Amino acid sequence: MPKLEAYDRSLSYSYAPGIFPATECLKACPERCLRLLVSSAAEHSEGVRSLARASEAAGVRVEVADRALARIAHKDNCFAAMVFEKRESELSAQGAHVVLHHPSDSGNLGTILRTCLGFGLRDVAIIRPAVDLFDPRVVRASMGALFSLRVRHYDDFDDYRAVFSRHALYPFMLTGAVPVEEAAEKAVRPFSLIFGNEASGLPDAFAQMGTSVLIPHSEEIDSLNLAIAVGIGAYAFTRRR
Amino acid sequence: MPKLEAYDRSLSYSYAPGIFPATECLKACPERCLRLLVSSAAEHSEGVRSLARASEAAGVRVEVADRALARIAHKDNCFAAMVFEKRESELSAQGAHVVLHHPSDSGNLGTILRTCLGFGLRDVAIIRPAVDLFDPRVVRASMGALFSLRVRHYDDFDDYRAVFSRHALYPFMLTGAVPVEEAAEKAVRPFSLIFGNEASGLPDAFAQMGTSVLIPHSEEIDSLNLAIAVGIGAYAFTRRR
Repeated sequence: MPKLEAYDRSLSYSYAPGIFPATECLKACPERCLRLLVSSAAEHSEGVRSLARASEAAGVRVEVADRALARIAHKDNCFAAMVFEKRESELSAQGAHVVLHHPSDSGNLGTILRTCLGFGLRDVAIIRPAVDLFDPRVVRASMGALFSLRVRHYDDFDDYRAVFSRHALYPFMLTGAVPVEEAAEKAVRPFSLIFGNEASGLPDAFAQMGTSVLIPHSEEIDSLNLAIAVGIGAYAFTRRR
Repeated sequence: MPKLEAYDRSLSYSYAPGIFPATECLKACPERCLRLLVSSAAEHSEGVRSLARASEAAGVRVEVADRALARIAHKDNCFAAMVFEKRESELSAQGAHVVLHHPSDSGNLGTILRTCLGFGLRDVAIIRPAVDLFDPRVVRASMGALFSLRVRHYDDFDDYRAVFSRHALYPFMLTGAVPVEEAAEKAVRPFSLIFGNEASGLPDAFAQMGTSVLIPHSEEIDSLNLAIAVGIGAYAFTRRR
């Protein structure tokens, strides 16, 4: 591995900044962990020492790297970060999927991943163009949930659909035909919950696919925040299992 | 009004950055609008021109203020911002309340306000210490929902409770006794949905108040993001009305 660089989308590795996300990375994907970076200021932090011991036990090299940590975390204090190898996963053919169409906000994406894991939705498809899944800000906002999920990118929705032709489609739209509660009650499994871009939502064509879903809200707001919509959809579609 | 300053919590005014939040401010609270700032780069923007016309019609002075806008919005492009007077509101004695205990993240707070408005929860109590409600980042993340809500600060929960002694309390806790769906079905009105700090949640003492509520999630995550929890709680408690 060459000298560590400031994070860039084109790199084959990224950083899980913070003790909690770095620990999740080591627990869920030890084979992808390349190196643990620790701050010299964190020598006496029990959290960092424990993570360093676990890393060494897993054969992951530990090094003091104050400058690299400052580069990764910008203004935030960051006592440790795991350098990890980027990888795509295979989605489960039987499992429920969450499909994110052109997500563009890194904080939202991280929150969505954490929420999916919280509701046992372990398979996430991302339709490009999309914010960089491996951006350290996404990893951090996900609290490391990223490492416990299967996430795969597709160049367009048809590519995804060609692979998973039997999933029942539930596109979430402002013009959705069926309220989320009713759609969830009658849900056919396995299902794909599909959510559009933060600003523009899903293209109109999705209204013709499967059962379009509405989360009713007052007319005083244009739309719910994307992560909130995913949270409510994930909650409603999984709460009876 | 003196020369505009970079935003600071101690000022008596703040900024609603962006055409949409500035428009919401003018629509909902014209009496609090002090001045509309517009960018010289936005001369030909129909959105900005329309907002400027509406501001003038409401007696709000419009001025080109490129430097002030750059200071407010940092790196983001910002074509317009409304300067508005900060004010506390009286909460409704009959209405449902959302109570935020020590919220600490400005983006989360803005998203929560937008979500509350979306579910018709117009009254929000904030228990100090708390992130600054009027921080332009909160205003922006709320998409201006702030201006259509009644929001009031209290120094501690007892102060809030002393005023609203008849509201049924529903503290959301990881140790909650009743699943959110069941609590929502049996909800006594008017109710207060109470949510704790992003990192620490609610103090244990809240478990003894009213009906503590659990949003069931997998053990693979420590907790849901605060805004997601509020979104699910607001959705569940309002969807039958």
